[in-house]
Amino acid sequence: MRNLDELQSLIDDEIRRQNHIMEPRELYEPIWYALSNGGKRLRPVFVLMGCQLFSDDVEKAVLPALGIEMFHNFTLLHDDIMDKAFLRRNLPTVHVKWDVNRAILSGDALAIQSNIFIASCEKEVLPDVLSVFNSTALQVCEGQQFDLNFERMDSVSVEQYLNMIRLKTAVLIAGSLQIGAIIGGAEPKWAARVYDLGLAIGMAFQLQDDFLDSFGNAETFGKNIGGDILADKKTYLLIKALEIGSPVQISQLESLMSEDYPQPERKINEVLEIFRQLKIDQFTKEKVIEYSKLALKIIGKIPVEKERKVELEIFTRNLISRVR
Amino acid sequence: MRNLDELQSLIDDEIRRQNHIMEPRELYEPIWYALSNGGKRLRPVFVLMGCQLFSDDVEKAVLPALGIEMFHNFTLLHDDIMDKAFLRRNLPTVHVKWDVNRAILSGDALAIQSNIFIASCEKEVLPDVLSVFNSTALQVCEGQQFDLNFERMDSVSVEQYLNMIRLKTAVLIAGSLQIGAIIGGAEPKWAARVYDLGLAIGMAFQLQDDFLDSFGNAETFGKNIGGDILADKKTYLLIKALEIGSPVQISQLESLMSEDYPQPERKINEVLEIFRQLKIDQFTKEKVIEYSKLALKIIGKIPVEKERKVELEIFTRNLISRVR
Repeated sequence: MRNLDELQSLIDDEIRRQNHIMEPRELYEPIWYALSNGGKRLRPVFVLMGCQLFSDDVEKAVLPALGIEMFHNFTLLHDDIMDKAFLRRNLPTVHVKWDVNRAILSGDALAIQSNIFIASCEKEVLPDVLSVFNSTALQVCEGQQFDLNFERMDSVSVEQYLNMIRLKTAVLIAGSLQIGAIIGGAEPKWAARVYDLGLAIGMAFQLQDDFLDSFGNAETFGKNIGGDILADKKTYLLIKALEIGSPVQISQLESLMSEDYPQPERKINEVLEIFRQLKIDQFTKEKVIEYSKLALKIIGKIPVEKERKVELEIFTRNLISRVR
Repeated sequence: MRNLDELQSLIDDEIRRQNHIMEPRELYEPIWYALSNGGKRLRPVFVLMGCQLFSDDVEKAVLPALGIEMFHNFTLLHDDIMDKAFLRRNLPTVHVKWDVNRAILSGDALAIQSNIFIASCEKEVLPDVLSVFNSTALQVCEGQQFDLNFERMDSVSVEQYLNMIRLKTAVLIAGSLQIGAIIGGAEPKWAARVYDLGLAIGMAFQLQDDFLDSFGNAETFGKNIGGDILADKKTYLLIKALEIGSPVQISQLESLMSEDYPQPERKINEVLEIFRQLKIDQFTKEKVIEYSKLALKIIGKIPVEKERKVELEIFTRNLISRVR
């Protein structure tokens, strides 16, 4: 069995092997720039963990896992254009470093490369792997569209928000685990359960992200606290506060969210104060714990040796205490 | 055997069956808008013609053929953003009718849907079909990048130009024919020959397009003559003229291409006059005939009954006399 670090190394080594920029360089340079810019490699590691649940041969899942990482980076490339994001992992985004056309076209090429890597799995499992991958990929686009819609909507319900993060974030983690499980030879029934496990992990992961952006520690989190608040982002925290707040608190929040609010520091502190009054931090933590517990319950039921599950279990337990 | 019109009807009927806009509508509306806006349906018909060469059961190629049409429309959606095109088949382009974000994200979703339709072929041929499709798709992106590069380059050689249109246009026609042939059960050797056939057809098709844009008849061609000339587009015609023109003609062309040339009608007429002096129309026609002859030669050699080849042969002969 390999631990998390070893699985991550397998991915990093394989990514380094892909460092050959083809012609036209204008197309492939931004791809390598995006792909080599670190990140947690969470999704490809999930492919390997899914495979390791059912097979000792995780090597056969490495190229498809890279395909998932490529797909993820393709979505980041295009999302960064749509969200007008200037920085990604502390480096200029592709559409800023080059231009929007390069980011569109390199993103398209990266998506196609991801298909090539996904399709490198064994023939016997190819139809099932593609079916999970393609439907997951389409849902990620749907999630991004809902997220864009939310910006223009006056109010978003908790239910709508949870559905959006399920599509935008959780399904790709779920699909990664399931694709790994299929490659590892899981029975369809258990491959489907592993998908549910990934959904729960993905939901806990995104909600903890929302939590850390407001209640984390800038040093350990690695970015400034309050970014979501400053951007008036409709996160779980804000949506829940608007749902349960008193009329006075809601109107306070709404006036803080007015676009030309002059003092950023004060805005963050006042919003956080209302969040604390309403125990939004606790509500969010409880949601993270709820999804993590669901994930642990599914892990417990997967009918394989304990040692195969240990890395997934550690990862899931850490979701709750994650600070970065 | 089905003729061209019957094959086209199979495609049109299937496209109409896809008219169900899912949620979020913001994502799927532009897809249906693009897909339902007619066009020649050339590429999916090539999939069916490729299949019909080797099999009576063309129905099994209809959904993958639709996948190819979806992929083609995805590239148009994104190319129109990059090329700042306002009209497509006489309707506003997606990024104009909605916005750039919608065109990027709907394009991405359409590309993923194309993968789903391509993957609907029979399991036995899936790995081969995907291998052709994915490498073709990547080459189309490479072709678009070369085309974008050409805009910024002072000079482009005939060889560079032919390579660009091979990637941007011909490989997708080639891949369509080959995918059809694979689905129809062709031996690998003949599937590969059918790809070469598609390349030749694709080259002839694009060069005839270049020809018609300058020497066609506005009424039959369906768009204004001289659009490429006004846009200073580096087509085969212009590149060839700059290659073989006298120093005086070259400097005339270059001054006509200066960006702030005031009289569009005069610009078109003067460029056409130089093209005629240099017999560029004849050179281009000869190139179209050369590729068409190559295509007909390959068709002649495919070891199947004559009636299976008749539609492809008619289509190829018509390439030379095509006026729209």
